[in-house]
Amino acid sequence: MFDNSSVMINHLTIIGIGLIGGSFARAMRISGLVNRISGSGRNRDNLDKALQLGVIDDYSVDIKEAVKDADLIFIAAPVGSMQNILGQIKGHIKKNTIITDGGSTKANVIAAAETVFDELPVNFVPGHPIAGTENSGVESSFATLYQDHRVILTPSDYTDSKALETVSILWKAAGAQVVLMEARHHDQVLAATSHLPHLLAFSLVNTLTTLDEKQEIFENAAGGFRDFTRIASSDPSMWQDICMANKEALIEHLDHFTEDLNQLRSALEKGDGETLKQIFVRAKQSRDDFVDKN
Amino acid sequence: MFDNSSVMINHLTIIGIGLIGGSFARAMRISGLVNRISGSGRNRDNLDKALQLGVIDDYSVDIKEAVKDADLIFIAAPVGSMQNILGQIKGHIKKNTIITDGGSTKANVIAAAETVFDELPVNFVPGHPIAGTENSGVESSFATLYQDHRVILTPSDYTDSKALETVSILWKAAGAQVVLMEARHHDQVLAATSHLPHLLAFSLVNTLTTLDEKQEIFENAAGGFRDFTRIASSDPSMWQDICMANKEALIEHLDHFTEDLNQLRSALEKGDGETLKQIFVRAKQSRDDFVDKN
Repeated sequence: MFDNSSVMINHLTIIGIGLIGGSFARAMRISGLVNRISGSGRNRDNLDKALQLGVIDDYSVDIKEAVKDADLIFIAAPVGSMQNILGQIKGHIKKNTIITDGGSTKANVIAAAETVFDELPVNFVPGHPIAGTENSGVESSFATLYQDHRVILTPSDYTDSKALETVSILWKAAGAQVVLMEARHHDQVLAATSHLPHLLAFSLVNTLTTLDEKQEIFENAAGGFRDFTRIASSDPSMWQDICMANKEALIEHLDHFTEDLNQLRSALEKGDGETLKQIFVRAKQSRDDFVDKN
Repeated sequence: MFDNSSVMINHLTIIGIGLIGGSFARAMRISGLVNRISGSGRNRDNLDKALQLGVIDDYSVDIKEAVKDADLIFIAAPVGSMQNILGQIKGHIKKNTIITDGGSTKANVIAAAETVFDELPVNFVPGHPIAGTENSGVESSFATLYQDHRVILTPSDYTDSKALETVSILWKAAGAQVVLMEARHHDQVLAATSHLPHLLAFSLVNTLTTLDEKQEIFENAAGGFRDFTRIASSDPSMWQDICMANKEALIEHLDHFTEDLNQLRSALEKGDGETLKQIFVRAKQSRDDFVDKN
């Protein structure tokens, strides 16, 4: 379905040159499939930094200006800002310009596009690269961020197949594995595997900061704690946004988790070590399998 | 207080030659402070492996035999087996033999020692090295495991100061930082920083394995999930043991966590993004501070 040989993007505009947008720009630069990379965003200092680093060729803080000649637009911005950005793009792009995004939730981005354009544009390819670090900003970006990572695209039945193919080819050129998924299903899966873990990590660290022994607790934490809480060092605004954008699926998984945790608590209170062990064994088995395969 | 110059242990016996015991043995070998290192444990294959690897000089599966000439005994066994092991040691050691352990909980190990010996032996120095990986077994052991890690010792008012000093010197020789703490306080702090995170990680992975989308969930998990769940690959029996041994403190922290998580859930449901963000910001700040200092 995807032919790697025929794509050449004359002008790529990336809105939001942070970890995600910057890493995509760097990968596209190396791929040789893009002639010119423009940036846009709210923060001029950041765009200047991106320019200095050679991540982009030029920029405009005016989104309308930045997208007017673009052949492909990648919106790498918080999901809560998508509607506003799409609203600024509308009416200022060429007829066949392809739009894609890197938002961590998909149903609400699609809803935003439908609101702005009345219907989902056929050249809009919603996407989500399953990659990232706890760091943010263009300084943290690197060309191999997407190497061997999945990128989930959630086209609708009406999405133009050529647009889908083009976006897929670019992601593959960045080293990613492209997977197609229904948008709501994507949100359900990611709530479990990403949004809930982030919520739990933020919540646990917050709880510990409220304790009297706070100081000692952090002093006596070891590598396990460091890894477990790594995602609690992620960008708070971004995660507020994601949790809000996907709150139904997130609450559903959270309730499931809490219910299971309560059973674990009961077993603990009753001194039922066998139940604890069964749960721990099953968890270890699943995690070891997951790590072996990834 | 601790003078590094004067200790020389003629015969060290380690009961349990896994990650913790094996790494201690390797570090002691390098330190030059120990002449002979004997091992003991239930699993002869494992002891043979430790012998082949040069981790120990000799072993006996009979604990009584292994400890009879020992000058210092390090019990690196699951906390649930401490009472049984101490029972086997009793009456078979020299008068001044120092006993220490590496158990992850301290109050119940002290209670076990009191039960076995009627009162806490003055030469018993309860300890807990805050180090480890998700791996277990002597193959996973390495001499620098304790380098720059904390070892918490929880002596009582009656603990012999020379015994405490000797154990401290050995841990420092292994590169560790020795910290003294009251046993119950240790258990409270570790419940927050280690036992609760393990419980949550095991519980989350277990919950995900019960979902219909299980396969897809694990396929689409990324680095954040891998780190967050690393501790769910830990040894289930060991963690069953630890959770049971420290269940009061663990339940207390768990309830505190669940209460805070419920508030987060309410905020989410009400669409109160500001509360979410405040919690996320505080968590990120604490974790970043912790990482900067460690």
